[in-house]
This record gives sequence, C-alpha cells and structure tokens, in this order.
Amino acid sequence: MPMPMVDIVTKGKPKLDDPVFIEGLPGVGNVGKLAVEHLNDELTAKPLAEVYCKDFPPQVFIDPDGTVKLVKNDIRYVKKGTKSGRDLILLTGDYQGLTSAGQYDLVTDVLDLLETHGCKELYTLGGYGLGRMVTEPAVLGAAIDKKSVTRMKKHGVEFREDEPGGGIVGASGLFLGLGKVRGMTGACLMGETSGYLVDPTSAQAVLRVLESLLSLKIDYSRLDDKARDMDKIAQQLKEMERKASERSPDDLRYIG
Amino acid sequence: MPMPMVDIVTKGKPKLDDPVFIEGLPGVGNVGKLAVEHLNDELTAKPLAEVYCKDFPPQVFIDPDGTVKLVKNDIRYVKKGTKSGRDLILLTGDYQGLTSAGQYDLVTDVLDLLETHGCKELYTLGGYGLGRMVTEPAVLGAAIDKKSVTRMKKHGVEFREDEPGGGIVGASGLFLGLGKVRGMTGACLMGETSGYLVDPTSAQAVLRVLESLLSLKIDYSRLDDKARDMDKIAQQLKEMERKASERSPDDLRYIG
Amino acid sequence: MPMPMVDIVTKGKPKLDDPVFIEGLPGVGNVGKLAVEHLNDELTAKPLAEVYCKDFPPQVFIDPDGTVKLVKNDIRYVKKGTKSGRDLILLTGDYQGLTSAGQYDLVTDVLDLLETHGCKELYTLGGYGLGRMVTEPAVLGAAIDKKSVTRMKKHGVEFREDEPGGGIVGASGLFLGLGKVRGMTGACLMGETSGYLVDPTSAQAVLRVLESLLSLKIDYSRLDDKARDMDKIAQQLKEMERKASERSPDDLRYIG
Amino acid sequence: MPMPMVDIVTKGKPKLDDPVFIEGLPGVGNVGKLAVEHLNDELTAKPLAEVYCKDFPPQVFIDPDGTVKLVKNDIRYVKKGTKSGRDLILLTGDYQGLTSAGQYDLVTDVLDLLETHGCKELYTLGGYGLGRMVTEPAVLGAAIDKKSVTRMKKHGVEFREDEPGGGIVGASGLFLGLGKVRGMTGACLMGETSGYLVDPTSAQAVLRVLESLLSLKIDYSRLDDKARDMDKIAQQLKEMERKASERSPDDLRYIG
Repeated sequence: MPMPMVDIVTKGKPKLDDPVFIEGLPGVGNVGKLAVEHLNDELTAKPLAEVYCKDFPPQVFIDPDGTVKLVKNDIRYVKKGTKSGRDLILLTGDYQGLTSAGQYDLVTDVLDLLETHGCKELYTLGGYGLGRMVTEPAVLGAAIDKKSVTRMKKHGVEFREDEPGGGIVGASGLFLGLGKVRGMTGACLMGETSGYLVDPTSAQAVLRVLESLLSLKIDYSRLDDKARDMDKIAQQLKEMERKASERSPDDLRYIG
Repeated sequence: MPMPMVDIVTKGKPKLDDPVFIEGLPGVGNVGKLAVEHLNDELTAKPLAEVYCKDFPPQVFIDPDGTVKLVKNDIRYVKKGTKSGRDLILLTGDYQGLTSAGQYDLVTDVLDLLETHGCKELYTLGGYGLGRMVTEPAVLGAAIDKKSVTRMKKHGVEFREDEPGGGIVGASGLFLGLGKVRGMTGACLMGETSGYLVDPTSAQAVLRVLESLLSLKIDYSRLDDKARDMDKIAQQLKEMERKASERSPDDLRYIG
Repeated sequence: MPMPMVDIVTKGKPKLDDPVFIEGLPGVGNVGKLAVEHLNDELTAKPLAEVYCKDFPPQVFIDPDGTVKLVKNDIRYVKKGTKSGRDLILLTGDYQGLTSAGQYDLVTDVLDLLETHGCKELYTLGGYGLGRMVTEPAVLGAAIDKKSVTRMKKHGVEFREDEPGGGIVGASGLFLGLGKVRGMTGACLMGETSGYLVDPTSAQAVLRVLESLLSLKIDYSRLDDKARDMDKIAQQLKEMERKASERSPDDLRYIG
Repeated sequence: MPMPMVDIVTKGKPKLDDPVFIEGLPGVGNVGKLAVEHLNDELTAKPLAEVYCKDFPPQVFIDPDGTVKLVKNDIRYVKKGTKSGRDLILLTGDYQGLTSAGQYDLVTDVLDLLETHGCKELYTLGGYGLGRMVTEPAVLGAAIDKKSVTRMKKHGVEFREDEPGGGIVGASGLFLGLGKVRGMTGACLMGETSGYLVDPTSAQAVLRVLESLLSLKIDYSRLDDKARDMDKIAQQLKEMERKASERSPDDLRYIG
C-alpha cells in the first residue's frame, strides 16, 4: 500500500474546546521553531499527532542513546494552556515540505486535523530577516482578517506597508492563506532577526506578543540562556571578521 | 482530503453567451499581465473564479491593510464587454505554474471551466523579448488556425517566419496548443519589448490590436502614466550605464 | 477532468499485422530523430497517433503559416513497409520526457499501444557521442536478447564490451528495458557521432543497418544533402577554431 | 495502464521463517552495496523479487554479451543462511530513488513485501565518510530500539554521540525510520571510509560485525582481492598528488 504524501499518526485523543493553533517550523533564524519548542517545554505539551511526509528528506536523526527517529513534524496540545483556560495545539518539527506541492499538502492535512478539533484561530511564528544584527527585535505582523490586524496592533505588533516585500513564503504564510479560504482567523508574527544565526532573542520577542495576546504565563530563563550562548558566538564571529579586515593586503601573500 | 493540484473556487455565476477569453499572466516584460489588469480596471470586470494551485509557490502576499491573500490566478468576466455586445472572460494572476505538469494541469482546468461557459475563442497576451530597447513595439502573432491568422493580419498583427524561434513557452502557448486539440479558435498576441523592464507601452500596443479586433473601447491614460514612469526609470538606467562606460580604466582602481 | 500524464490521441485505425516498431527521438547528434524522420518521408508513413505529455515543456511551435502546434510525439505507420511485406510503426517527436517518471510513463503507454497492434519487435535508434569528429561512423548495438545480438552482428552492428560505459539513458534504453520485461525482442542501434552537431551521416549509417535488417528500400539523397550542409558548417567551425588558435598571445590584448 | 511508482516483480516463492533483512544500496564508498553483493555471492542467494521504479533513471545497462537490463533493485533470499538456521532476505541494486518521494515509496513497498514474509528484523549497511584515508575502519551504529543498541555494542559496533551529525540520509536511514513506525527491530551498520573511493575494506569491517551478530560464516578472499586492487589505485592517486604538489610554481607556466 503506497504511503500517502502526508501521513498523520494520532498519538493522543484529547477532547479540545475551541483550541488556538500555534505553528513554528524551521525558517529564518529558526525563530518560529525556537518559540514553539519553548512553549512545548514550558507548558508541558502532550503528544497529539506525528506528521510524516514523503516530501521531507529521506532521513533519520540519531538520539543520544543511539536510537533513530524518522524526520517528522510534531503536533502537541495543552489543555487550558491560557490563563483564561483555552486549549492550545502546537506544531513544530524537523522540516517544512521540500516542494510547493508538498507544502500545500502538509498544510491542508494539518488544517483538516485542526478542523476536527474545532480549531478556528491560527498563529504562525517566524523570523523576518533584516540582513544586519538586531538587538531589540520588533515583531511584524500580517493577518487573515482586519479584526486580527487591529487586535495584533493592540499587543505591540507592527504592520509596515510593503514589509515583508515578498509576502510570506512557506508554512507560516500558507496556514494563513489556506486558513483564510476556510474562514479561519489569526495572524503571522515575525520577529526581526539578522537571518545569519539562530535567534532566541527574536523568539522571545515573538513569544512576549503571544503571551500578551493569549494571556499565557511563560518563563523565559531557558531562552535567555540560549540567547547568551548565541551572543557569545556572535561576538566571536565579529572578532574574527574584525581581525580579517585589519590584515594588511601584504598579509594576503602568506595565505592563499 | 488532499488538495487537488488545481482548485478553482467559483466567485460568480453569470450566464455568459459565447464569451471571448483573454489571458495575460506574468511573463516577458509583464506585457500580458499589464494588459489584462488594465482591461479588468477599465471594463470593471466582475469575479468569476479564483484559481489556487499546488504548483504555485507556498506564499501569501500582504495587502496595505495588513491582511494576507494566498497567491492565485483570477478569472473575471464582463457582460457585453465589446461594442457588439459580446461577453468577455479575463484571466490574470500572480504566477504561472512552476513545473511543466503544473502548467498543463492549470490550463486544462481553466479550459474545462471555459467550455462550461460555452467559450470557443481564445486570445493570449504576452511579450516578445528583443534584448534591446523598443520605442514603437510591433505586435507579433501566432494563431490556432489559418482563419485567425488572416483575421489578425487585418488588425495589424505581424506574422514573421521563424519568430519567435523557440515557439511560445508557458500559459500563452499552452492555451492555444491545448485549445486547438479541443477545436477552439484564437491567437497569441506578443508585444515587442526589451525584456529588461516591465513594459506598459508594449501592453498598450497589444491592447490596441485587441481593441480593433473585438471592438472594445479602452481608455489608455492609466497605462500612459505607467509608461511615463517606466520611461523615467529607463532613462536613469541609461544614464548610469553611460557614466559607467565613460569612466576611464584608471578609475577602476577606486572602485573594486 | 485533469489531463493524464500521457495523452495518446488516435489518428488512424489501420489493421496492422505483426508490425516492427522503430523509435528515434531527440538525443545525441539527433541521430535517431533524423533517421525516423527520413523513414517517415521516404516511406510516406501515415498518422497512427499523437502523444501529448505533461512532462513535455509547456510549449507550442509555430508553423510557417503562423499556426501553432503543441509539442508532441508522433506515431506513424507504413503498411507493408518492408520488401517482405511487414508493417512498420514509427515514433519520433519534439521531446523526450523531462523527468524520470515522465520517461517511464511515456514508454509504458506507447508499449501498451504497440501491444494492442500485436507488435513484439522493437528497434530504437540513437547516437553514440565520441567527443571527436567521425567520418565513417560505425553502428554500435545493444539488444534485448542474445538472438537479436547474433542477428545484429550479421548486419554489421558492432558490440563492444563496456560501450557505451553508462549503458543507454533515455527512451532508446527504456523501450528495450521495459520491452524486455514484457517479453519483446529487438535492439538499439547507435551511430557513432561527435556529439557536437546534428549528424545526418550517422543517421544514414544507422538506417543502412536497418535497411539490411528489415529489407527496406531507402533513398538517401535528402540525407546526403543534409550531410553536405552539416559538413560545410563543420568546416566553418574548424576554420574559426584554427584562426583563434593561431592568434598570438599579444593579440589577446585587443580582445578581452 | 500507467506503471506504478514502484513495481515489484516476484521471482521466487520460498516459504521463509522469521527472516532477517539486510540492505546495501549504492552510497558513500559503496560500502553497503559491496557488502550485500558479497553476501549474495558467498551464500549463493536466490532471486526473490526485482524492483523497478519510475524514480530510478530511465536507463539500461549492457551485459558483456550485449544484452540490456533495466536498472533495478534485487531482492534475494538464503534459506537457513545463518549457522543457527535463520533465513535471510538481501537487498542491493543499481540505484536509490532520485527524489524524496521516490525513496519513501520504494522503502514502503519493500517493507510491505518483507511483512508478507514475516520479517521483523532489519540491518542496513552503509559507509560513514570521514574525508580522510582510513586503514582500520571502525563500524558505527544506530538502531531502531535500545535493545538493539546494547546488542550491537556487544558485537563491536561503536555508538558515538552526535555521529553522524546529520543523521542517516537515504534508504539505510529510511528502512529503520519507517520500520520503527511498524514496530520492527534492527540497526544500521556504517563502516568508516574516506568517502573518496569504493571501499572493500570498510565493507569487510561491516560484514565481520554482521558475521558475529547473525552467526554467519563468510569467506573474505574475494573482498580481500578487491581491497588490494583499490589500495593500488589509492597509491597511484597519492603518488600523482605528491608529484603535483612538488612541482615548482615556475612549472605552472608550461601548463595553463
């Protein structure tokens, strides 16, 4: 029996009530993935489903104990994850689909699953690459509907005309685009980031908007630790670059 | 339920009588897209259908109000759009299919839709890239049938043997090719263009043929404005080029 | 209704008796295509079917009269095409499939058609690129079965161990490979060619084998004309190359 | 009738009892393929099935007798292939699938076949490229389950945290990953290898682990011969490299 393009394997059968969906897959600065992984950890999210896809690379990763796991996306849930008691569904994973058709198939099948759980509200998280270092990242937005735009602005999200210029490419855009066709509501939150490095600071900026928006209560100490680690790496890279640019042209003789 | 390769969502249910189909999708100089967008505006075309496709990029664009729209093709109609009272169906959009198979699927499904509306006459609009600036663009043609060739010639369309040498690639060619298999009639109109810049002047040349051919009544002032804007940009580019070529070899020291 | 990957449109319904199939699609030196086109002309082959495919480019070619034709493969037949009175089925066309899957689909569907006509014997024609000019091209062979190897050798076909080293890629190989699985017989005939230019001389070498093998009667004057044309072009290219290599290093100053 | 993506043609109908599956397809250093081919030869494995796939190149190879064979994968079996009397199923072949989807389809269909034979234990063999010459290759492992990890370690397999860093890509990884989803057991054995050359020494290292693991009895003389041949080639390459690096800069004048 041929494997379907997308194979969603149910891992839990919770009864969810009007849940909010939050997506963060690999992308610019890995901002979305860092953010949703942090939510998974802090809110001890439980497995809802695993998503396998023929449009992911044919690859397994190896756990520290030597066992393999097939590349996949992970869907988890949190009962009463918000202060007001709303349920959450969280999506992150190893990869996005490699081709256009694979992306459309993945998002379509996840939206189908969301609808079986009565989900009508989507937030997709990602990074907005600026091509330069950012210390205090703003969070840009784009939304399915005007009401969501107004609501996002109240929570500090910036809407800049013509940004991002090329729109939003990938799962974060597609969930909104295909969700809109189904009459869903929600928005994409994009943390400014250099685009050069994994960016926990930008992930935190995005999560702080989400915290305010959904009345979550999140501890950021683990993301702070990661941010400090990345800052060190960034400093080292800058230092290396500075030294390289200080070298006089004569030095080049001894190199290449 | 997996998304089909092409998903045509009906937006209007007009009763059309022997309508004429006009296609202009992104391509060389964006001539076809500019022309059909101009027709949509000038003739206040109404929505007939939206076309989504898994072979488009997984992407949303962002409107000035901050809301997203999934990339798509747009099919609109105009009741009694010609002076003689014929109905029009107009196709433009964000993208053509990314792969061969996607292109064939898209055109096939749109042709199916056209047949349900009794459409038997197709005009596809595009640019013919010359690789040099053109001030008074001619309009080249290729047609489904000899009768259409004769008719096009009467309206000023040029047929040059062996031009375009590689035939016509993309939706503009495919609509004619697959339409011919179905026994339809019609032609492709290609406005000469440099191929370097978006070309409203070439779009106007193409539309003037169409105006004569279908007894349309089109106001060109908006296209004229766009053409003047593009002329300025072209002048600036020429100026930059001239300056660059005047620089003596010695100057190069100070650049790279 | 979505277009199938391969769409074979019947153009004639002859009753064929144990026909021999000959394939020559675009490839190295266009040897196979030239050969089958020559057979089509000399034996006034009649249309049997047209093959459209979503794995061909989305493209139309333009005839001298200004009308378009969708890229396709052509299947023609000749009643009593051989001196002994056997029927022939001939395949040539504009393109081979662009992807692996498309190639397998095309060949599979054509083999299905051949079986409905009771065809059990296949000859596929192509070029064998040597990377140097060839004046008297040998014809190399590879066959479905040992009996065919023996028979080919009697008609002057050379079988060299480890040549071609990479086997045969494309339709010429696939017809034999998939035909073998179906219990068919036959061979691939590869004319030596430089691989740089379209090669009517190599096509003639291949046809002479086929002439002997199937007791055909072919006039080669048109291929001879084409060969003389190509010889002139080759001479001009050689001359240009000679002049370029004679230029002293000093001359280079005035060029780049 | 369109060809399915994967076409498994049965070649034998043995009754197998709890067989062990061993896979070795082309990959880094061709370690896996060399190893399984050696097992096929030494244990005189019999044909079980041939696997054709539209995601393989459209290609035939030519046997020394001049006949063609379509590129494929080969599944063979050995009744009572181990000293303890267990049956073996062996997979090797010309290619892995060219695309992600093709790889998933191939592995899925082979796993289906394995399940019809009651197979629940998988070993996949491959090379681990180090980018430098290796004289005594270690064998690294990754396993479906912790029990297999423990067992592998007893037979000399090394498990190094974070190696291979990118996990395992291709059929060797996918058999474990998709096999795990089906509740199978087993491991991947990766012989260290330079990654530059075909490596019979690494293949032997992998086989020695398998020999110990499954109580096989294997003669290595033919692999030793191949290893000596490769050593000679490696020596020649080193010599060429040494000479090239000894050439003084002045010599370069006479070359390029």
